[in-house]
Amino acid sequence: MDKPVGIIMGSQSDWQTMREAAKILDELGVSYETKIVSAHRTPDRLWDYGKSAVSRGLKVIIAGAGGAAHLPGMMASKTRVPVIGVPVQTKALSGVDSLYSIVQMPKGYPVATMAIGAAGAANAGLMAAGILAITDAALAERLDAWRAALSASIPEEPSDD
Amino acid sequence: MDKPVGIIMGSQSDWQTMREAAKILDELGVSYETKIVSAHRTPDRLWDYGKSAVSRGLKVIIAGAGGAAHLPGMMASKTRVPVIGVPVQTKALSGVDSLYSIVQMPKGYPVATMAIGAAGAANAGLMAAGILAITDAALAERLDAWRAALSASIPEEPSDD
Amino acid sequence: MDKPVGIIMGSQSDWQTMREAAKILDELGVSYETKIVSAHRTPDRLWDYGKSAVSRGLKVIIAGAGGAAHLPGMMASKTRVPVIGVPVQTKALSGVDSLYSIVQMPKGYPVATMAIGAAGAANAGLMAAGILAITDAALAERLDAWRAALSASIPEEPSDD
Amino acid sequence: MDKPVGIIMGSQSDWQTMREAAKILDELGVSYETKIVSAHRTPDRLWDYGKSAVSRGLKVIIAGAGGAAHLPGMMASKTRVPVIGVPVQTKALSGVDSLYSIVQMPKGYPVATMAIGAAGAANAGLMAAGILAITDAALAERLDAWRAALSASIPEEPSDD
Amino acid sequence: MDKPVGIIMGSQSDWQTMREAAKILDELGVSYETKIVSAHRTPDRLWDYGKSAVSRGLKVIIAGAGGAAHLPGMMASKTRVPVIGVPVQTKALSGVDSLYSIVQMPKGYPVATMAIGAAGAANAGLMAAGILAITDAALAERLDAWRAALSASIPEEPSDD
Amino acid sequence: MDKPVGIIMGSQSDWQTMREAAKILDELGVSYETKIVSAHRTPDRLWDYGKSAVSRGLKVIIAGAGGAAHLPGMMASKTRVPVIGVPVQTKALSGVDSLYSIVQMPKGYPVATMAIGAAGAANAGLMAAGILAITDAALAERLDAWRAALSASIPEEPSDD
Amino acid sequence: MDKPVGIIMGSQSDWQTMREAAKILDELGVSYETKIVSAHRTPDRLWDYGKSAVSRGLKVIIAGAGGAAHLPGMMASKTRVPVIGVPVQTKALSGVDSLYSIVQMPKGYPVATMAIGAAGAANAGLMAAGILAITDAALAERLDAWRAALSASIPEEPSDD
Amino acid sequence: MDKPVGIIMGSQSDWQTMREAAKILDELGVSYETKIVSAHRTPDRLWDYGKSAVSRGLKVIIAGAGGAAHLPGMMASKTRVPVIGVPVQTKALSGVDSLYSIVQMPKGYPVATMAIGAAGAANAGLMAAGILAITDAALAERLDAWRAALSASIPEEPSDD
Repeated sequence: MDKPVGIIMGSQSDWQTMREAAKILDELGVSYETKIVSAHRTPDRLWDYGKSAVSRGLKVIIAGAGGAAHLPGMMASKTRVPVIGVPVQTKALSGVDSLYSIVQMPKGYPVATMAIGAAGAANAGLMAAGILAITDAALAERLDAWRAALSASIPEEPSDD
Repeated sequence: MDKPVGIIMGSQSDWQTMREAAKILDELGVSYETKIVSAHRTPDRLWDYGKSAVSRGLKVIIAGAGGAAHLPGMMASKTRVPVIGVPVQTKALSGVDSLYSIVQMPKGYPVATMAIGAAGAANAGLMAAGILAITDAALAERLDAWRAALSASIPEEPSDD
Repeated sequence: MDKPVGIIMGSQSDWQTMREAAKILDELGVSYETKIVSAHRTPDRLWDYGKSAVSRGLKVIIAGAGGAAHLPGMMASKTRVPVIGVPVQTKALSGVDSLYSIVQMPKGYPVATMAIGAAGAANAGLMAAGILAITDAALAERLDAWRAALSASIPEEPSDD
Repeated sequence: MDKPVGIIMGSQSDWQTMREAAKILDELGVSYETKIVSAHRTPDRLWDYGKSAVSRGLKVIIAGAGGAAHLPGMMASKTRVPVIGVPVQTKALSGVDSLYSIVQMPKGYPVATMAIGAAGAANAGLMAAGILAITDAALAERLDAWRAALSASIPEEPSDD
Repeated sequence: MDKPVGIIMGSQSDWQTMREAAKILDELGVSYETKIVSAHRTPDRLWDYGKSAVSRGLKVIIAGAGGAAHLPGMMASKTRVPVIGVPVQTKALSGVDSLYSIVQMPKGYPVATMAIGAAGAANAGLMAAGILAITDAALAERLDAWRAALSASIPEEPSDD
Repeated sequence: MDKPVGIIMGSQSDWQTMREAAKILDELGVSYETKIVSAHRTPDRLWDYGKSAVSRGLKVIIAGAGGAAHLPGMMASKTRVPVIGVPVQTKALSGVDSLYSIVQMPKGYPVATMAIGAAGAANAGLMAAGILAITDAALAERLDAWRAALSASIPEEPSDD
Repeated sequence: MDKPVGIIMGSQSDWQTMREAAKILDELGVSYETKIVSAHRTPDRLWDYGKSAVSRGLKVIIAGAGGAAHLPGMMASKTRVPVIGVPVQTKALSGVDSLYSIVQMPKGYPVATMAIGAAGAANAGLMAAGILAITDAALAERLDAWRAALSASIPEEPSDD
Repeated sequence: MDKPVGIIMGSQSDWQTMREAAKILDELGVSYETKIVSAHRTPDRLWDYGKSAVSRGLKVIIAGAGGAAHLPGMMASKTRVPVIGVPVQTKALSGVDSLYSIVQMPKGYPVATMAIGAAGAANAGLMAAGILAITDAALAERLDAWRAALSASIPEEPSDD
């Protein structure tokens, strides 16, 4: 069966952030592929990835990038497959540059933008799962269980250690 | 048949922005309901909406709010139905407050955040359609046509008038 | 007797900040309870806490949270007990996200927002004490003494060590 | 009987914002006094106001100011009466300067900071009422009714006009 | 002879800004072409433009865009022809989003970023002329004259009208 | 003879920054006094310092503070002696809060604001010396020499070590 | 007698802001000269102005500029005469660009930075007067009177009209 | 033969950033000179450098500076040789001050601004090479090869180590 989720990122260094998305998908039993697709260094790879996304059976694309982060938006321009964007934290501007470059898309090409950094990457995995769960009852159940477990893990009282 | 999309907003004044989402769904032939759900003024309405979202057949929720914009995130906490958030532009902080309040969600509860203002609302409609199109081939075709028409509408040369 | 102050926070990790509020209340002889109440992970706990606040005798609630910090504002929506909000410092945005999410509340649901981080948490304790001191003469005296001691602790000259 | 609330502001031009606080107190039947107290232009008036606040029977002080907004913080330094701060919107920096100058108080001198502008001023009135309602059952009832009316005023559906 | 400068922009609405670049090139006697090239709506046009830039004899490309402004950076990825980027002012974020999306390019793909808005567009024209003037003595002279005239136009004293 | 310069600061911890001002005055042979004057913790000390500044022979006051930095502006309100303000760097907001609180003074009460942090403190010393040098020819000479030495210390070429 | 104050500005359009400085100096009976000195368009004028400042008897220079506002800092580099900088409000960035370009000077070359816009310009005039008043008793008296009149002009109560 | 590129910087400490530009030029076989030119500490050196740039055969100038970064803009005022500006990262404001001071140039004097920090410096080298490559076919080939190698260096899959 096709892998329904593609996790792509602008560079090897983004993997430290984006693996949080992969981890969540592992926990939820959603299969995925990973690929480095740099909007600027490998634009043709981006093109090919976008053009073949539907035919290859991708249902959701998770794209992480930092700085002038063009990957998520350009991917959204090349395919109607929903794109979830993760702004990777940057050195000088802490990821505000990534966030603005990803979220401020013009009418026509939405990118489902998550929080800056690792929490955002994990949430990209959850959003992808939530989208797939619309028509996958078993996954919906696993997602509900995941959410219930998260809620149950919260203690009543803060502890000093 | 159930309406697959719910468009909710924090107040009547947000409708001026959020109707752009409705307009897009109209163009794409996606049915939807609209409702004012204020996180702070009608928290129980928010609760009920979230709790019944799955059973009422909602597939995607579009939530717009401004300022300390808690509606999208709280809705994401109450249901596994994917929530798309639209930061409404504000007077003093231009919607940066709305954006941060919506996008910076903690691990566990993603909100698919769009651009600030009307373009973001329109894109919320497109993102909802893109999600539904994963398993709705006819909608996928209409979405492809919509995107093709947008591309075709761009003239080659800028004109002075 | 009922504890007049509730210190709540979005997660265990916020306790490192929020204990400064507890420390101040200890110094001023004000009793309090502490509880982890996550707006997103335990929304029903938030609901219950808010709904029972008056009947349980809470006079003031101190709520700390970071990022898309919805806890203080949602609590303010559920109870008329005054809510003091503490923006916890965050990794990418240094707490500006927390600050905007807490302070920019719409008309109807004020949150008494403090400074970002530990100083803000300590001040939340002092603000709670100041509110209770309006009708508690003994506490007012202790608060005056605390303030006088703080003033008296300031040396005249800076020292090099 | 003494007026329990003092509404002070840095200049005549702040009144356009601060009257929203007065309006709310009028609606809730809380009496108040109003005064222009400029931290910089009338520092001695500020001193006197702060020093006499307790003896004059003030229970809560609402202070609005813009720009390098020192009034709320300096008042908090001069009296233990709880001070609620309202950042007035400014021309160049939209009130971010006012917000930072009011909210970022050092340990020892909390200012209960509200949202920038008119909504913040209205909320200052509500916060003052909420504080007084702790020990005033009749006011608590009026506040509950005010909140209930606000909630009840929210229509279910957005309207186009 | 080939036109040495290409002025491209993301949409018709950017022309109001970008015509300032054209105006300067007219004044300096530099010929240019103009084209609407939307990174998201016409990505293939962007591809073709970039791939043929060298062979078509383009020496410099001026690219203006707003919001998540991907055009200048994507063009820099597709051709070694120097790209000058103009951040178009936007409604909510005043062009800070455009600026960050254009200037924060990763190593490998520089975009020569100008000021936000009309002054930046005019300067893009001047920068293009300055680049061409390196090997075009006549243009260098015209540029020197243009600069001298600008300097000479500054009065000694400010006037009240 | 009276010391012409007063260096004041909001707390002991500011001394690490403010000693740079003292160091410069030492180098230039300008005598000064140092004092901790907290706007909030020792407001009466601030009052006394401001009221006696002229009679005690102070010619310039250098005031450093961080966060809601009210010291420089309040001192400017209490005396016509020129006040130079130094925004101390802060943990969460890097001193932008300090900068806005110091520089955005209303008409009537200027504070001569320096850069954030240590460079700003050093420059406060130089600004004080420059002011005194207007009518002190010997100091003017020493200041010219200091500036010439700084210029002369700049090597022609950067070195790798 | 020499005019002790020079008011310079980067362009004719800055005069709308900078005339507030002139107005204050008129009110205080301080004579001044005005001149347009553009750091970029008339750099040699800047050089000459700076080099001759001392010999021409200037005691204080007030310099206003907007955007990449280099005039105040470059003037501070060319003369030891104290330079007061006024950040002129700008279209896209509201003067934050002007402020950062003026205030963030490196060690060695202080600029006494005022608030953004007209209030800052007025305060530049007051700061200049305050500096001259150190050794001009008559001016000191007039400045004291000006300040007293400003304080006296503040009404006790806000009025509705 | 003349060196076509000048790399200048405001201080020795900027070299750590600016050497990335030199490294790129080394890789591409472009000769260059390096020089410390402080706009404030050595303004006459700046003047001389700018005035002699054309006659000395400089084709492109790369200028790096931090804080109130006046070097690139002032150099652009003194010569028509294209100036590429590199905003050096700063301690308090992370280089946003440098960025605004460099990019927000008024009409007439463009600075080709790069990203903040080391990536920006490397890109300054690439931009300089791209400009020279317009009329240097051999360099154009080397630049194409450099770009191809960068693209080829991107692995397909992220790796965990």
